[in-house]
Amino acid sequence: MKALRFENNDLKLADVDLPHRNGEALVRVTMAGICNTDLEIARGYANFSGTLGHEFAGVVADSPDQSQIGRRVVGEINVGCGQCEVCCKNDPRHCSNRTVLGIRGRDGAFAEYLSLPPQNLLVVPDGVSDRQAVFTEPLAAACEILDQVEIRASHRVAIVGDGKLGQLISRVMATRGCDLILVGKHPNKLELAARAGIKTIELDALKIDPASRFDFVIEASGAAGGLKLALDLVRPRGAIILKSTFHGAVELNTSRIVVNEISLIGSRCGRFEQALELLESGEVEVEPLIAGEFKLADGVAAMTEAGRPGTLKILLTN
Amino acid sequence: MKALRFENNDLKLADVDLPHRNGEALVRVTMAGICNTDLEIARGYANFSGTLGHEFAGVVADSPDQSQIGRRVVGEINVGCGQCEVCCKNDPRHCSNRTVLGIRGRDGAFAEYLSLPPQNLLVVPDGVSDRQAVFTEPLAAACEILDQVEIRASHRVAIVGDGKLGQLISRVMATRGCDLILVGKHPNKLELAARAGIKTIELDALKIDPASRFDFVIEASGAAGGLKLALDLVRPRGAIILKSTFHGAVELNTSRIVVNEISLIGSRCGRFEQALELLESGEVEVEPLIAGEFKLADGVAAMTEAGRPGTLKILLTN
Repeated sequence: MKALRFENNDLKLADVDLPHRNGEALVRVTMAGICNTDLEIARGYANFSGTLGHEFAGVVADSPDQSQIGRRVVGEINVGCGQCEVCCKNDPRHCSNRTVLGIRGRDGAFAEYLSLPPQNLLVVPDGVSDRQAVFTEPLAAACEILDQVEIRASHRVAIVGDGKLGQLISRVMATRGCDLILVGKHPNKLELAARAGIKTIELDALKIDPASRFDFVIEASGAAGGLKLALDLVRPRGAIILKSTFHGAVELNTSRIVVNEISLIGSRCGRFEQALELLESGEVEVEPLIAGEFKLADGVAAMTEAGRPGTLKILLTN
Repeated sequence: MKALRFENNDLKLADVDLPHRNGEALVRVTMAGICNTDLEIARGYANFSGTLGHEFAGVVADSPDQSQIGRRVVGEINVGCGQCEVCCKNDPRHCSNRTVLGIRGRDGAFAEYLSLPPQNLLVVPDGVSDRQAVFTEPLAAACEILDQVEIRASHRVAIVGDGKLGQLISRVMATRGCDLILVGKHPNKLELAARAGIKTIELDALKIDPASRFDFVIEASGAAGGLKLALDLVRPRGAIILKSTFHGAVELNTSRIVVNEISLIGSRCGRFEQALELLESGEVEVEPLIAGEFKLADGVAAMTEAGRPGTLKILLTN
């Protein structure tokens, strides 16, 4: 089968064997999404070698769980060892021996087929299209914030970063009815969020008023400067939720965190169930975030397009 | 009156007027403690100019609240504006216009007298000596952690730093019955903690085992390297409580915080009531932490002694 692989510091389309692992389901990928993590891997920043991709929708071709065969599915990307303490607590996302689809020790979704344990798969509701379902993974990552902190309607929330993740997070936070603002650098992306009813502001126009700082600041800029801005924006005893992963270290004035008793909360993958619910109910619209579709065969060109500054979601189809 | 002041980048004993502010109580200081913050100020790192000192016990010489006169007291060090949102929520500790005794806009406790609002003063129980009461402020800072995170007997807790604050935090955490270890560099200080029944380990002997990381790591080393060690020690989804304030920035790999969903929680001043309770009940013994007593007149020498590496609490008496 065809697969878009990163090997020996080179991104290329290759012909490879089916990835069907023992005891796992085989999924025919119908659609996949390119994430910034894929771009970082293709820059050689993540020590991953293999087939890229972890955002997908597909159809089960084979599974030890016969009831799954033929069903349209999405899949949780973390596969734990099944035996350690966190796995026993049903949290393979933090198993230290986990593999992660297209990220760590496991070939990914930019291929005709992928392999995942049957328990990682969730059936996609009929009302949710593949073009929507492919957003389940990043939307779940946005929803993870709601599992970590309690955001109420009375809270003031700022989101730093108007890219793909910041857009999804804005839409998820908007479902909470909180006093929300998206801070970004790109007028077209801010306009996109505004069309979804989200209050926005350009970074250059932002004035930091100590008397009206934010209860929560969500850092999704993917840039080292985002954390410093978040520290300027958050109120004493407020929380910064860190969603950005990027290569390299950040200079941090920790005494500011101590004196103002700020919480800095790392946030990664979330539960798929709540993301599928938001898609099914229509509370979060994701299709306006699609910037283009490419055939898997044109995967290298798709990655180049996705890596152009300012590009939103690029999809790969089979 | 005599006061130990830091002015024009110089630490010296000076003769100054009584600091009695309008509407505030006047307290005759009987004993004061030297904290690392005082040492940082005397290094010119905090932009403070005036009388140093914020840990004290004293006797009320005058007060608008007549019932306080003659009482033995300790005092909360933060004085808010009384009008802003956080002050209205009874949290002057985070008022952006606050003064702080001996730290920010207000002369401190290394003097014969100090001035604080009557509502900042708490009467010291009869069973608590001045030598104990002078620890109320740093002990409250240790207790603050218990107001921020719920530490249960089942939790594994590591404290990084065997200095004054690490020693107090260890003793406070030990009251929780959690599985506790103090990590330090100084055999004599670790021995001191061990005599209080606390499990200790020398940094050089510490092996980091991914399978047995800690639910909570409390960073009280006062050194830039402490945060990196804390990140090595904390389990995925665990929390690091930052108590150290020190001059300068730390290089931080934020993607580790994101991927492992670590929380980093800044922690500063705490409530005095719970500290006084721990002193009165005898649950926390502080006198073994006293390394020496100096007369206020010998304050410069006392500061030099307190600044010698490895010195525990130095007290000033009047």
